[in-house]
Formats: sequence, C-alpha cells, structure tokens
Amino acid sequence: MEMWIKEAQIEDAAMTYKVKETLVRKKTKYQDLAILDTCFFGRMLVLDGIIQTTIKDEFVYHEMMAHIPLFTHPNPKKVLVVGGGDGGVIREVLKHPSVEKAVLCEIDGDVVEECKKYLPEISCELDNPRCEIFIGDGIKYVNDHKNEFDVIIVDSTDPFGAAEGLFGGSFYEKIKECLTEDGIFIAQTETPFYLPEVVKKVFNDSKAIFKITKLFMAAIPTYPGGYWSFTIGSKKYDPETVNLDKYEDLDTKYYTKKIHKAAFVLPKYVEDLIK
Amino acid sequence: MEMWIKEAQIEDAAMTYKVKETLVRKKTKYQDLAILDTCFFGRMLVLDGIIQTTIKDEFVYHEMMAHIPLFTHPNPKKVLVVGGGDGGVIREVLKHPSVEKAVLCEIDGDVVEECKKYLPEISCELDNPRCEIFIGDGIKYVNDHKNEFDVIIVDSTDPFGAAEGLFGGSFYEKIKECLTEDGIFIAQTETPFYLPEVVKKVFNDSKAIFKITKLFMAAIPTYPGGYWSFTIGSKKYDPETVNLDKYEDLDTKYYTKKIHKAAFVLPKYVEDLIK
Repeated sequence: MEMWIKEAQIEDAAMTYKVKETLVRKKTKYQDLAILDTCFFGRMLVLDGIIQTTIKDEFVYHEMMAHIPLFTHPNPKKVLVVGGGDGGVIREVLKHPSVEKAVLCEIDGDVVEECKKYLPEISCELDNPRCEIFIGDGIKYVNDHKNEFDVIIVDSTDPFGAAEGLFGGSFYEKIKECLTEDGIFIAQTETPFYLPEVVKKVFNDSKAIFKITKLFMAAIPTYPGGYWSFTIGSKKYDPETVNLDKYEDLDTKYYTKKIHKAAFVLPKYVEDLIK
Repeated sequence: MEMWIKEAQIEDAAMTYKVKETLVRKKTKYQDLAILDTCFFGRMLVLDGIIQTTIKDEFVYHEMMAHIPLFTHPNPKKVLVVGGGDGGVIREVLKHPSVEKAVLCEIDGDVVEECKKYLPEISCELDNPRCEIFIGDGIKYVNDHKNEFDVIIVDSTDPFGAAEGLFGGSFYEKIKECLTEDGIFIAQTETPFYLPEVVKKVFNDSKAIFKITKLFMAAIPTYPGGYWSFTIGSKKYDPETVNLDKYEDLDTKYYTKKIHKAAFVLPKYVEDLIK
C-alpha cells in the first residue's frame, strides 16, 4: 500500500507527498492535527489538511520570519510570537543575544505538546528559560499588552477559519499599540501566485497603519507555488536600508545579509500587485 | 470524473493539477507528448510525464532564460536556442532589437508543430522572419557551427534520457567553440532542493570551461520545489556587474533590472552547494 498526503489549500492544484507513517492524528479543540513521517521531507506537521512545516525545509520559513525583523531592529529585547506552536520561530529568535524574553502565544496547546514530542529539531528551544509559553488567544493577548514588544511575529495558519482574525487592519491596529515606539511587526502573508488578493489586502491594511510597510519573498518548497510572501510593518526602521555590517553572521541555512536585502526585490507581477 | 495529472520528475513528492481536457497526446519519435488544458494553469505542455510549460506561469522561465544573458551581452546579434520547441524563449529573445537572427534547434519537430497549434501565446514568434527553425540534433548543430553565436540558450528537458547529452563538460566545450569571442551561454539547471548533485555538477563543469560562471534562481510555480536554478557561462561579461541602465525596460511580468541582480543572490544552502 502507498500512502500519500494531498494538500488541501489550493483548489485545482495540489502538492502530494509519499508518507511512511502517521505518527499522530487527533482532533484538538481547534483543528485536525497530524504529524506524518514522509519519505522526502521527513516529519511533517499538518493542520486542517494544510502543511505547516517539515523537518527538511522548515529552515527557510523560520529563519526569514525571525532574522529579517530582528536584524532590522537595533536592539530587540522583548519578542512576541503569535501562533508558531511548533517552536521554529522561537528557536531562531533566541539565536539573537539581545533577546531577553520571547513569548509564544499559541491558541492550541496540543500543537505545542505534539511538536515537543515529535518535532524536537524544531521545538528544541521551547524549554529555554528566555522563552515564555502562553496558551491562549493571540488577539486577546495583544489587546492586553501595550507598548511592550520590540518585535511581534505573527506565525499563523492561513486566513480562513481559526486564524482569520489574525489578518487585517483591526488586528494590526492592536499590534501597533502592543509594540514599543520603534517596534516592528511581521506576518506570513501567503502566495502571490495563487492568492494575489490576500497579499494585496494584507499589504494595504498594514500600509494604512505603519509608517513603513514592505513585502519580501522566500522560496519554500512545501508551500503552494514554492514562493511565499511576508509583510513587515515598522514604526521606525526600514528593513531594506538597515546597515547589517555590525552583526555577526548567525548559523543559518537560508538567511544571509545579502539575502536579507535581495528578498525585498520583487518580480514585476508581485511589484504590480502592491503598487 | 475528475482527471488530475501527477508529475513524474521527483520520487516521493509530486505536484498534481486538475485537468479539464487532453488536447493532444502522442508518441513522437523521441518522447510522449501531451498538451492538456488544466483548471488553474491553462494549457500545459508535458513531455514524458514532466511539465515543461503552462500558459499561466511560462513567463518566469522564458523571461529569465532570455533577458539575463541578452542584457549581459552589450550587442547580441545572433542567438541560438537549443531545445525550446515551444517557442517561449524565442519570443523573449526577439524582444531585443539588436537580435538579427535567432535560430531554434529542436530535435523533435512534433513539439514545434503541436505548440504552434495549441500554445499560440507561447509559440507566436516562431514565424517571425528573424527566427530560423532547424529540426535536428542540438549537439550536432553546435559541433557544426564555430565562432558564430553571441548567446546560446540551452532550453532542454531534464538530464535523463533524450537531453542527457546537453548537460556536462563535453557539450559545454563545444558550446564555447560555437560562441563568438565574447559569447555567453545559459542553461536551465534543475532544482537545488531536490537535485543538488545535478546543480553542483553542471556548475563545476561550466566553471572548468568558462572564464565566468554564475548561478541564478527564479521562482516557477509548476517546477518541482518552485525554485529553479540557471547556470551562465560567459567568456567576457559578468551578468552580476553589468550596467543595465542603458537599456529601456521591456514589457515583462517577472524580469526587471533589479531582479536581474537580485536573482544572483543565493540562499546559504545553494551558495554552499557551489562553493
């Protein structure tokens, strides 16, 4: 018998991966959670049929979500990650010595628990003393904290269902208040090829709220289209013009100082989308 | 009934696309040729089960294959395309007013004929008087022409089966002789994520032969991993440092002058691969 997972995000086009074994499958309070062992990508976290991360290609997403904003801010001490229960973004955030506290606010405690069990390569820093885990609603957490975080990273699932409230202007207003006066916000903002309207809306929502809004791209094999957008909203620092020379290189597999700048150079069709 | 095409290039990971209709399917002298009408990507050319091009995303590959070398060379007059029977690269090459003659050397005449019939958006310039079509073996054509072309573009299928001879040092030696003294060669060189050894070998083969060898990347949704490598071998001009300001912008959907430069900035794992 051959078992393949077929991803559910995009209609009429799907990625499929051959599966060795289902390690866990459960209905949590919020979603259908599965961790599979796949032949090419190793262990894979799937939520509501959508691939979230895999052992083999997780480095791209997690490095770019963490290092672009954290190297843009000159001295990030307090960082909030909304979502990201697998711990991959936290692992990268804690590579920055300036960070004193990284809060993970994940709505679904089962994601944290199962990733600790089955994806230790990704979740390994969740027990770091500089990491604080809060299981609860990200919107409420952001509303309850004002002027507190230097960087807020919204590592959510897609803008349908549970995570819908994490995309759009009203949430970004609260994010702005939750940030310090020179704070930076970043979110994963989907594929411009399959979901151009989502990319456009999120970009314009952020632009209406933050002094500086920029879009950058990264190549992630297991995300639809293989090419993913990220939106940054910043009160003061421009991620494109920041001087990176003062930082030592981190141990990374995708991010470099040159990639930091090149990621903001957009193909014409993406440039046109956010004009 | 639902019909889906499942791509055959990568074991254990496959892209699948919902198909409306098979427009043509035939065994040619060289390969299994199909043109399908798909729901999301429109018409799609498939050779031996591998997706070659689609109406919706062909622009990325064809623009990057043509404009990077043609803008690197200051005055490209004669251009040879080996393979590329769909005509997409020829269409982009002929956007450059300096080009007096563009030769298409395609081994499989059926590819040219069926693409003329079913993919007019891509093949539309094959009847341009500046285009000369030669149906025959690319290796023989290159061997028979010396010091003739300013730019040679190797738009081949993958390095297994029919196109195997189009990858590697002995062919690149002949390419070098076929080029003028300041000529440039470019080839599509597969996915660094799934086929790192191919990328590495081709790069090193080119490096042993050409004064300047550079790798660049582009994001192509229907190619495995979504992120594709291209290798340039050049006798004189460096595609990374060339001054592009003198050129007028072409009508493109992916290529821009900024993308030209940014495409050479490689993620760390790709950089490490060709070190």
